[in-house]
Amino acid sequence: MENITVKQNYHRIQPIAKIHSCYAEKFGIPRQPGLVTKAIATIEMLPPFARAEFIKGLDAFSHIWILFLFSDVMAEGWKTTVRPPGLGGQQRVGVFASRSPHRPNHIGISAVKLNAIKHDEKSLLLEVEGGDFLDGTPVVDIKPYVPFADMLPIAVSGYSARGISGMEVRLVETVVSFCRDYSKRTGRDLAGLIEQVLHQDPRPASQRQKKESFGMQLWDVNIKWRVKGNRFEVFKCEQIRNHRNL
Amino acid sequence: MENITVKQNYHRIQPIAKIHSCYAEKFGIPRQPGLVTKAIATIEMLPPFARAEFIKGLDAFSHIWILFLFSDVMAEGWKTTVRPPGLGGQQRVGVFASRSPHRPNHIGISAVKLNAIKHDEKSLLLEVEGGDFLDGTPVVDIKPYVPFADMLPIAVSGYSARGISGMEVRLVETVVSFCRDYSKRTGRDLAGLIEQVLHQDPRPASQRQKKESFGMQLWDVNIKWRVKGNRFEVFKCEQIRNHRNL
Repeated sequence: MENITVKQNYHRIQPIAKIHSCYAEKFGIPRQPGLVTKAIATIEMLPPFARAEFIKGLDAFSHIWILFLFSDVMAEGWKTTVRPPGLGGQQRVGVFASRSPHRPNHIGISAVKLNAIKHDEKSLLLEVEGGDFLDGTPVVDIKPYVPFADMLPIAVSGYSARGISGMEVRLVETVVSFCRDYSKRTGRDLAGLIEQVLHQDPRPASQRQKKESFGMQLWDVNIKWRVKGNRFEVFKCEQIRNHRNL
Repeated sequence: MENITVKQNYHRIQPIAKIHSCYAEKFGIPRQPGLVTKAIATIEMLPPFARAEFIKGLDAFSHIWILFLFSDVMAEGWKTTVRPPGLGGQQRVGVFASRSPHRPNHIGISAVKLNAIKHDEKSLLLEVEGGDFLDGTPVVDIKPYVPFADMLPIAVSGYSARGISGMEVRLVETVVSFCRDYSKRTGRDLAGLIEQVLHQDPRPASQRQKKESFGMQLWDVNIKWRVKGNRFEVFKCEQIRNHRNL
């Protein structure tokens, strides 16, 4: 960890929106956006940007860029080199050769599907799909995804191959029934979300040998699972009381 | 133009690099990156980031994202709505439904081809191709372009269709000979750059009816051309003295 800073030429930026997401904690968040389509997030525009004219015409685009701040690691500063999960978590590369959150200026970019725009007198909300955002993430910009400029079919990637682990996911009976009740009450496909998140194996490389159970929080639910051969077995779901969701 | 600001939750960011580009002024800059492949730009890493370890592994990627500041319009503030050139410059859309530089926080993103990395004791330079950067642009982040996350083959674009105008470009004899000499001296394909920049028609919609000649600066050369039917005729190139290039 280094904390060299340049004390000149600073530019101040401010949040224009805030993300409400199913990922209440870092563990479980996919390593890249787009992998978990059941991960619906809501982007709440902040004043003075919570007016429909700021996004007029955005509904003509199927996908949008979200520029956001890695606010949860900002206090930790940045690193010169990192060990990206796409290289097995062992090999070190420069922070600018990675998408690590521990980067100077702490800005992330994610292309997500724009599902819906909801606007009433009190709020302006964008519902997006496939994001990798922590709940509460501050947004600093929204841009349309423009295929002819942003889509580079000839691009070659050094690593970060699609992180599908091929792990099977099984929910025990009580979990299936919990998810069914939860979906009825909230409209959220919790079982589908759990399956997608676990299918891409959220364990850091350092924890792949761990035998015990794992836990993570999605929305306001604590979820526990264990490894059984090539399969993850989800054996417990627990509602968190007094959790505030949008 | 609006200048409402929120005076809370500010985040300070700083340049990590600076761009040296052929575009000495706004006129002539393509409306989106990737259109003018002859536009080679050099990204000079600034201290303390001008060390090879910060970009270790980046050479495994063919393309990279440049996050930069629209520094030339920052003093003008931001707009709530804009008239994008992709809609003929008439229709208004929200600033977040556009890639306009007049946006809150003034951050731009461009995917460019990484041609070469040049490193010696004094400097660390990235040579990139296809950027739409003004000379002197401050860079706030560099990230690898990761196809499976950044390339969305199903994305639908509301406008911003590829801006190729189909204009023919002709250089008069004296210009051809100027470009030949210039290339010998600098190694830059000036004739190719002029052709690509003009082929995509840099005139704002408001100037399409203008009959007189047009001028723009590329690198340290003033270039003049006029409209002849469906063709642009480049009739003058003039070297600017005392111009500092990288």
